[in-house]
Amino acid sequence: MRPRPDVAALVAKARDGDVRSVARLISLVENGDPALPEVAAALAPYAGTALVIGLTGSPGVGKSTTTNEIVRVLRAQGKRVGVLAVDPSSPFSGGAILGDRIRMQDHTTDPGVYIRSMSSRGQLGGLAAATPQAVRVLEGAGCEVILVETVGVGQAEVEIASLADTTLVLLAPGMGDAIQAVKAGVLEVADVFVINKADRPGADATYRDIQGMLGLGERAPGEWRPLVVRATAVKAEGIDDVVAAVGKHQEWLSRTGNLVTSRERRAAVEVEAIALGVLRARIGDLRQGTALGTLAAAVAGGEIDPYAAADELIKGL
Amino acid sequence: MRPRPDVAALVAKARDGDVRSVARLISLVENGDPALPEVAAALAPYAGTALVIGLTGSPGVGKSTTTNEIVRVLRAQGKRVGVLAVDPSSPFSGGAILGDRIRMQDHTTDPGVYIRSMSSRGQLGGLAAATPQAVRVLEGAGCEVILVETVGVGQAEVEIASLADTTLVLLAPGMGDAIQAVKAGVLEVADVFVINKADRPGADATYRDIQGMLGLGERAPGEWRPLVVRATAVKAEGIDDVVAAVGKHQEWLSRTGNLVTSRERRAAVEVEAIALGVLRARIGDLRQGTALGTLAAAVAGGEIDPYAAADELIKGL
Repeated sequence: MRPRPDVAALVAKARDGDVRSVARLISLVENGDPALPEVAAALAPYAGTALVIGLTGSPGVGKSTTTNEIVRVLRAQGKRVGVLAVDPSSPFSGGAILGDRIRMQDHTTDPGVYIRSMSSRGQLGGLAAATPQAVRVLEGAGCEVILVETVGVGQAEVEIASLADTTLVLLAPGMGDAIQAVKAGVLEVADVFVINKADRPGADATYRDIQGMLGLGERAPGEWRPLVVRATAVKAEGIDDVVAAVGKHQEWLSRTGNLVTSRERRAAVEVEAIALGVLRARIGDLRQGTALGTLAAAVAGGEIDPYAAADELIKGL
Repeated sequence: MRPRPDVAALVAKARDGDVRSVARLISLVENGDPALPEVAAALAPYAGTALVIGLTGSPGVGKSTTTNEIVRVLRAQGKRVGVLAVDPSSPFSGGAILGDRIRMQDHTTDPGVYIRSMSSRGQLGGLAAATPQAVRVLEGAGCEVILVETVGVGQAEVEIASLADTTLVLLAPGMGDAIQAVKAGVLEVADVFVINKADRPGADATYRDIQGMLGLGERAPGEWRPLVVRATAVKAEGIDDVVAAVGKHQEWLSRTGNLVTSRERRAAVEVEAIALGVLRARIGDLRQGTALGTLAAAVAGGEIDPYAAADELIKGL
């Protein structure tokens, strides 16, 4: 058995900027450590102190490079920055193939930047549950801006991106990404679209596609209309515009009161996910862990229907 | 208020092959009707009477055409066939864009084939919860083989595909699909790979890629090694081989006892999902529906941590 972590000491040291303590706390989160509720309790006072930027897009679109350049701009503004590179790996494979984690050599010696990649092993509810806790760790460690970078544009990624105050969706010309983005529901979560690799052929067409699709949607008065920005991250071009667009969105969030309401909405999703995770674990433990299997065999054999079986489980809780 | 459906009468008529009753029952499932537990109870005795084939793959890979041709072969064998074309649409957009539903004109006048497309609106737990109930309706209606076709290779699709006894994963040459399949964890759920459009350049390379990846995995003695079959569905070529491969897998399932154990495992997932859906609804109803929102506001404000908030909810159940 691993020794129980001294959570209070870890949080105190993380507050003082001790990188190893931050790393340890995020590991506790990532692994779904039994001390997690204690960690969350210790970090609660610092909730909401950082602005959280989500960054998502298909593989190859230039997420790591763009993140790297955004960090550079934020550092030049004197902000303390945290980066979470989230890897929604296969539930089966452990993510070895997706694991081409972020490498940001430019910032590794800068004490004002904390960079961490995360995967979903261990944690009940997966990354959707673990990511907000990791954000809290970085908030507790004094990060003023936290970038959450996720691979891909599937539903899990949309969930993770939606944990952010401002969500950037990266597209690149010629990848059919505009259409894919719509299919995956990314259009609805994006606050700012970044057409990366804007020096390539087709960038104008992608720009027009996105603007066209944004024009189609109905928008209530006062609702946010996503901004579309062109950048070439690999040449550090257009990144100031990206950061400015994020700033505009965050100004809008604060002015309209949407910052508070959307954070409350996200907290509701988070609390519900934790509660369901706990209930799921209790269901698994019923009758020394045999209840679900016995009922499932009866369902597969046609002796009982799955709703009646589910009722049995709930009665047992 | 809609009148409460006469479930017993609907099930009796569906048993007699009345297509409208089958359609009505699937609509009840799809819409998460309050009568769902009653429908499930009436259908329980017919559970497990059909063989369920899952069919998944990226957009454009030829799923509808392949499904169409598989149905043709099964009909030639005299089997009654059900097809569920499942659309795991965006949680945001309602799936209008993904909704290029299956069209299978060849079979619409054949009373031995029932074809239905489904989306996830309404049902607690989404399609992962609704699909097994729809399968039970088709079993109840006397289908001997049920094809469940899903778009894409994301996690939701993997879940749906894994409801099947035998899962076919379709790939096409030159789409980078082999690598995508691995990333999405599809390699682990596929029982049979179909390299469709096998008359196109690159088909051999895709075939070798998949065979190579299958060779890399460790396999216990007696474990199933996925088959890889080439087909050109649009020319009706290779479909007999696909159906034969499915037959081999199903023979293996029966011989080894894996048919029973895997159906029990699936029933466990299903029962758990229903139970969690019910608990989720109860959480939402706590204190006239205000409990979660109030706790979430406290979490967002840093007054309480999310684990403590979740505990509060659970205590209230």
